[in-house]
Amino acid sequence: MIIMGIDPGIATVGYGIVSYNRNKFKVVQYGVITTAAGLPTSTRLLEISNDITTLINIYKPDCAAVEELFFTTNRKTGISVAQARGVILLECSRSGLPLYEYTPLQVKQAVVGYGKAEKSQVMDMTRRILKLDNTPKPDDAADALAIAICHGHSAGMQKLVDSST
Amino acid sequence: MIIMGIDPGIATVGYGIVSYNRNKFKVVQYGVITTAAGLPTSTRLLEISNDITTLINIYKPDCAAVEELFFTTNRKTGISVAQARGVILLECSRSGLPLYEYTPLQVKQAVVGYGKAEKSQVMDMTRRILKLDNTPKPDDAADALAIAICHGHSAGMQKLVDSST
Repeated sequence: MIIMGIDPGIATVGYGIVSYNRNKFKVVQYGVITTAAGLPTSTRLLEISNDITTLINIYKPDCAAVEELFFTTNRKTGISVAQARGVILLECSRSGLPLYEYTPLQVKQAVVGYGKAEKSQVMDMTRRILKLDNTPKPDDAADALAIAICHGHSAGMQKLVDSST
Repeated sequence: MIIMGIDPGIATVGYGIVSYNRNKFKVVQYGVITTAAGLPTSTRLLEISNDITTLINIYKPDCAAVEELFFTTNRKTGISVAQARGVILLECSRSGLPLYEYTPLQVKQAVVGYGKAEKSQVMDMTRRILKLDNTPKPDDAADALAIAICHGHSAGMQKLVDSST
């Protein structure tokens, strides 16, 4: 199974594509889509849309896992990120990808085994699970890989539950 | 000039298409795109995307005017609406439509001449400006027509300013 993890944003969208077979993860590709702050929002959304579609066409993931949003104090940033997330969900849907959503707490729980883990612990466990020499950079790409791992674990668990019934 | 006004939402997207020539408005079409609450968000976003694109292809507007979002207490609804708005901006951008954004205050100011006007006053003035017998229904469609009128007035003013320099 090829999983595409996505960490939504308007300036930076992290993506992490991993294969997950027989309880083993392997990195396929990871990185970020970036858009310039000076461009109109609609142009930035179009760039994100095109890049997500290109990634789906190249790596042909079986599913996508996207981080859930929570708004804190900066509502203006929140609106921009939610608009970008809408575009990401749309393009996954248009490509027929099954979509899964996870909260940051679920991601930490799945990767580190502890919902209140520090960011550095999540990064380090992501590196170990994927057998990488260094922590993946930038952070948004590492976050996206962690989301993909989270889905792999959850999907594995789901399968286990299903087969026992 | 054909203006497409849009009032963003996830369950209901209002649209109002008007022509504006020599300071006169004429209704072309108005209505709502609706999506079922039981469907996955990504499917609802895909429906909105397809319907907005269809409207653009049929009525060939010269530009789109979209209401700006402000988040209040219900953040969960706010995220859903912002995701839908992202998809709407994307499809306008993909079709090459120039996009304009207006706050509710700007819309009231442009339609009624008073930024703190009541909703009923905005509805009534929208009906009068468009020479309709009855207030357009549902409310989201009337809101979208008001946004289109707001842009017509603003665009008219813009032209006036430009020609005087």
